[in-house]
Amino acid sequence: MDPQTFLDIATKVTKLKMYPYFDIAHYTLMCVAARDDVPANSSGGTVFSRKHPLSCWVSSMLLCFAGSLIANFLLGEPILTPFKDHKALLTASVVWYLVFYSPFDIVYKMVKFLPCKLAIAGLKEVQRAHKVYHGVVYTAKIYPNSVLIILFIGTIKGAGSGLMKTFERLVRGLWIPGTNEVLQPSFVTKACFLASLVFLMEKMNYITAPHALVYFGVVIFFVYFKLSALLLGIHDPFAPFENLFCAVFMGGMWDAMRRAVATEPKKND
Amino acid sequence: MDPQTFLDIATKVTKLKMYPYFDIAHYTLMCVAARDDVPANSSGGTVFSRKHPLSCWVSSMLLCFAGSLIANFLLGEPILTPFKDHKALLTASVVWYLVFYSPFDIVYKMVKFLPCKLAIAGLKEVQRAHKVYHGVVYTAKIYPNSVLIILFIGTIKGAGSGLMKTFERLVRGLWIPGTNEVLQPSFVTKACFLASLVFLMEKMNYITAPHALVYFGVVIFFVYFKLSALLLGIHDPFAPFENLFCAVFMGGMWDAMRRAVATEPKKND
Amino acid sequence: MDPQTFLDIATKVTKLKMYPYFDIAHYTLMCVAARDDVPANSSGGTVFSRKHPLSCWVSSMLLCFAGSLIANFLLGEPILTPFKDHKALLTASVVWYLVFYSPFDIVYKMVKFLPCKLAIAGLKEVQRAHKVYHGVVYTAKIYPNSVLIILFIGTIKGAGSGLMKTFERLVRGLWIPGTNEVLQPSFVTKACFLASLVFLMEKMNYITAPHALVYFGVVIFFVYFKLSALLLGIHDPFAPFENLFCAVFMGGMWDAMRRAVATEPKKND
Repeated sequence: MDPQTFLDIATKVTKLKMYPYFDIAHYTLMCVAARDDVPANSSGGTVFSRKHPLSCWVSSMLLCFAGSLIANFLLGEPILTPFKDHKALLTASVVWYLVFYSPFDIVYKMVKFLPCKLAIAGLKEVQRAHKVYHGVVYTAKIYPNSVLIILFIGTIKGAGSGLMKTFERLVRGLWIPGTNEVLQPSFVTKACFLASLVFLMEKMNYITAPHALVYFGVVIFFVYFKLSALLLGIHDPFAPFENLFCAVFMGGMWDAMRRAVATEPKKND
Repeated sequence: MDPQTFLDIATKVTKLKMYPYFDIAHYTLMCVAARDDVPANSSGGTVFSRKHPLSCWVSSMLLCFAGSLIANFLLGEPILTPFKDHKALLTASVVWYLVFYSPFDIVYKMVKFLPCKLAIAGLKEVQRAHKVYHGVVYTAKIYPNSVLIILFIGTIKGAGSGLMKTFERLVRGLWIPGTNEVLQPSFVTKACFLASLVFLMEKMNYITAPHALVYFGVVIFFVYFKLSALLLGIHDPFAPFENLFCAVFMGGMWDAMRRAVATEPKKND
Repeated sequence: MDPQTFLDIATKVTKLKMYPYFDIAHYTLMCVAARDDVPANSSGGTVFSRKHPLSCWVSSMLLCFAGSLIANFLLGEPILTPFKDHKALLTASVVWYLVFYSPFDIVYKMVKFLPCKLAIAGLKEVQRAHKVYHGVVYTAKIYPNSVLIILFIGTIKGAGSGLMKTFERLVRGLWIPGTNEVLQPSFVTKACFLASLVFLMEKMNYITAPHALVYFGVVIFFVYFKLSALLLGIHDPFAPFENLFCAVFMGGMWDAMRRAVATEPKKND
């Protein structure tokens, strides 16, 4: 491909407006996540949604605006700020209504239909890159030198729903403390951390490529791995590197050495 | 009744000072709630209060100032602000002491005695209307156009103790995630939401009646339904409307249609 | 001892720099606490730390900076502020790494070796006094007349890890709601409350001794009781006073009287 055309496309991606299509894709996936997350022994999300519409709505809104809510909480800003934006709230509520209560469940079934699912997931990943980037830029403005806070807020903005899940479940009367995003970080969280790192390094001039290219690269990275997760079932391409890292630096090496030392005498007998 | 006299009474109600009588009624009911809320299989609140006075006090204070605490949390203001008011805190602490540790449990028994209970509940509802109104006015000042945030804070100010209960229980070593105010909103929460809506509509000039009348109307509404709950056992006069609304809009209609379609073929056999 | 020499020592203690030795002692104890706190039926902290390094790190950081995190949360300041200090964060992370993953577990074993344990605990108590004092001074500046808030923040700054424990466990997938610091306050929490009270009374000119002496007194008080807890197993020297206080004021007296009245008639039979 002609490099200039490629750069033009990248620049266009950088300037994409998130509202309405990308945001709607995000809200749709979040509402579906809220609907699908029911305990294994229950009779399913449909019955629950009939009895507890308020709980479903609060739950869905917490997931839709998870990134902003948690980031505001951690940065000491008014938590409710995302609900000031009536347009976003109304859009999310309409999406919530359609996902939970559409006639003959048509919207929910459509979203679960693979081609639709792929399209929505793709749009959502573009929005994710946008949110991570703006999280990094915003935090870098208020905490210019706090690398860790910038990375943290960038990750949260992109993958806040994972962290919110523990508390969002509480609204629906569920409490599953044994599993959370810090204990078992999902691929999405790790990818958002990496993307934050890339954007931060760009901010600090360690990456000198044009901004549009860096941004476009992150978008492609997100979309590519999401689609391969959906189509090929590759859920965590980082896993091998992590296991290696853990084996070397997180005690694995020493444990092996200790085992070797501990079992040596037995062999001599 | 002479309309002028009625308006005079309404104006007087608008200008009532909450401290000390109305506040004391509120603190009393909250401390009693903290004392009564023990798990079914335990030996009762009396024994617990002897062993864990600190936990009881923190628990009671969290309930007494629940509205302000949660509203401050959500609006990004210092959470401890309500504890700056020494007069209120001292009054609440004295009430707490009397409810939990009065000689021969005389205060607790008096509060449970029906005529006293009615009087205290009546006073408390007047205070509730006051808190909802001031919550709406305050939030409308800092978030002028955010309808939802205004309604939310108004509701929280009036019925915060319901939402706080989940966390207040944690202080007493109890954790009951399966039930919360969002999952099963109580009548009080719904009434506070309605009152917030009325006050907000008045603020936005959709209601043109004199302010004193609107305020007095809300007070009467609160007191009337509280007394009918205590005397007649009517716990949720909104329930029929809600059920109708849910049946029509929250999927009930479509579910019925689907069942009809699904069972039709069987009838033909 | 010559009073002048004593005062000189006290002044020197007042001006001690916390970084690096005292802070390192604090971080070490907190990381060890995070590592040791595993459920009774699990196979131990070592295996957990191999599988979930991120969870261990977040957990340890939450404990290391517990005081500041909770105080910031309660005072409406940005919660993440402690993570702005890269030097502290890096030191804590290195300590965390050494405690969890040092070759042959040598650091952990050294910390558990009594003489080392005593030294580290001693250093940590000096740091605790420093944190309580600065918590009181800081809060007294922003809330000059709010006695309770000052005491509260002073206590939290010194003994925040106890309160944080409930939530820090959640990060490690543990949830033990039946026990928390408010329900069963530890000696450390009570001592921090007392120290806050002493510093507050000094601030309000009820204590007229030289500041260095007051501060040194608190340090000696902390160190003395910590060492006696480690060496003699005296875990709560306040317990007898508390039991007496509860027996007299927290209903015990009335309960005894009621029992006396209730059993009297039986004796007459």
